[in-house]
Amino acid sequence: MAKCKFVSKLENLWSQGNFVCVGLDSDYSKLPLHLKEGKTVDQAILEFNIAIIEATADLVCAYKPNIAFYEASGLEGLKALEETIKYIKQKYPEIPIILDAKRADIGNTSRNYAKAIFEHLQVDAVTVNPYLGKDALLPFLEYKEKGIIVLVKTSNPGAGEFQDQIIERGNKPLYQVVAENVVKDWNKNGNCGVVVGATYPEELKKVREIVGDIPILIPGLGDQGGTVQQVVEAGQDSRGWGMIINSSQSTIFASSGEDFAEAARVATRSLKEKINKFI
Amino acid sequence: MAKCKFVSKLENLWSQGNFVCVGLDSDYSKLPLHLKEGKTVDQAILEFNIAIIEATADLVCAYKPNIAFYEASGLEGLKALEETIKYIKQKYPEIPIILDAKRADIGNTSRNYAKAIFEHLQVDAVTVNPYLGKDALLPFLEYKEKGIIVLVKTSNPGAGEFQDQIIERGNKPLYQVVAENVVKDWNKNGNCGVVVGATYPEELKKVREIVGDIPILIPGLGDQGGTVQQVVEAGQDSRGWGMIINSSQSTIFASSGEDFAEAARVATRSLKEKINKFI
Repeated sequence: MAKCKFVSKLENLWSQGNFVCVGLDSDYSKLPLHLKEGKTVDQAILEFNIAIIEATADLVCAYKPNIAFYEASGLEGLKALEETIKYIKQKYPEIPIILDAKRADIGNTSRNYAKAIFEHLQVDAVTVNPYLGKDALLPFLEYKEKGIIVLVKTSNPGAGEFQDQIIERGNKPLYQVVAENVVKDWNKNGNCGVVVGATYPEELKKVREIVGDIPILIPGLGDQGGTVQQVVEAGQDSRGWGMIINSSQSTIFASSGEDFAEAARVATRSLKEKINKFI
Repeated sequence: MAKCKFVSKLENLWSQGNFVCVGLDSDYSKLPLHLKEGKTVDQAILEFNIAIIEATADLVCAYKPNIAFYEASGLEGLKALEETIKYIKQKYPEIPIILDAKRADIGNTSRNYAKAIFEHLQVDAVTVNPYLGKDALLPFLEYKEKGIIVLVKTSNPGAGEFQDQIIERGNKPLYQVVAENVVKDWNKNGNCGVVVGATYPEELKKVREIVGDIPILIPGLGDQGGTVQQVVEAGQDSRGWGMIINSSQSTIFASSGEDFAEAARVATRSLKEKINKFI
């Protein structure tokens, strides 16, 4: 099986010791004030993103814009998202872009989401929600070169409401059943990944056992808690790779002043160094 | 508890015998050719939607655009969605608009989705995915006047992959546990609804028993199978109301010729009459 392009890009950057994913959750209301003056919403967001990217590109394994923060600013926000993606693809084609969108719908509708995400926006990977099952997500899975990253155990405090429910057949929690189905049945094209929150290191360890060497996107390390040592020990694969460790707001909004980009670089480099200590 | 505005709008239309929801899944690639000539993408989609709306407004209990079909056309598609929503709100303010988006993310991100959907687009209701649990969806649930319609048992063939898994505690399938949590815990503001596919009438009956009189959005009657009699007998609430029976592509694309709007009216009226026979 030829290797999925998204996974190849990740492996290239992992081999350079880069495991940090910077979450471009560029909430307009939180942008530094000096950046907004005299600019339209899309200009300000794009300028902010470019500054963050330029300050961190040599340190990351991926960028992950969450589309909710762009949708919240309407068409102007989405224009900024499009321009940001174009910028990364042109200047740093080696860095994969993960659109965090957590999409899922029935087949015909998922086909349109996949078209929007992979053909219109042209990102390298997307996060999807497993609740509707595999057949609903097939239109995503059929893009062999793209990464399809399935929510398994999310980072929020109430993640367990359904994800931790014990499934009678197999006597294990739902999130493990999802991980098993992904690796046994959904990953035919070798293009799947899974999401496990840094807030749940024990569950992360269990999921790593289940999924082998497939990529795990790990959000929730910054604001949401979870220590780097626990996460890296539980999350690395057999090669010491396999982790996309995301940091969003605690990195991009590390400073609200004119030094915001430099502060993002300091936060990213610090996280990179901590991670590499435990690999 | 004051009644949620979305539910009041539904009840007003249900009391007139209107249970059909027209799904404005206005896939640009499927629009009648004569409508596209000499027009931009957003103009063509908007014109199509207006014709469908004008042909069906006296027969429906809701309109339900699925945002995937607009995202697939990029910013032009989303502009058409915005304009369509504005048109309905201005001309038919009594008809609720449900944005089918199946959103869910962790709290801070869901807050941005909710802002995009309820403050920017200003629709009356949204569909959401329960996999992340209640805390993730609180930012939606806090909009007391808006409808929050939770996926319970979806209409696709593989819906059961996780939704039918038997949960040890209570010895019942996951979809029933979701329905129970929605009605017992999530519905504090009386603004919740649930989604159950017309393709699963037995599960629909079971969910109606669990949720009492809360609205059930029922997709999948047209292209996806499920008979009207089974659906109405299983889905109606204690008042003979409670159903939002969706028909999308089999209605809006009933004809691909110049008579597409009239064909949509015929299909909608026919479905309305069939439904009312079994109430």
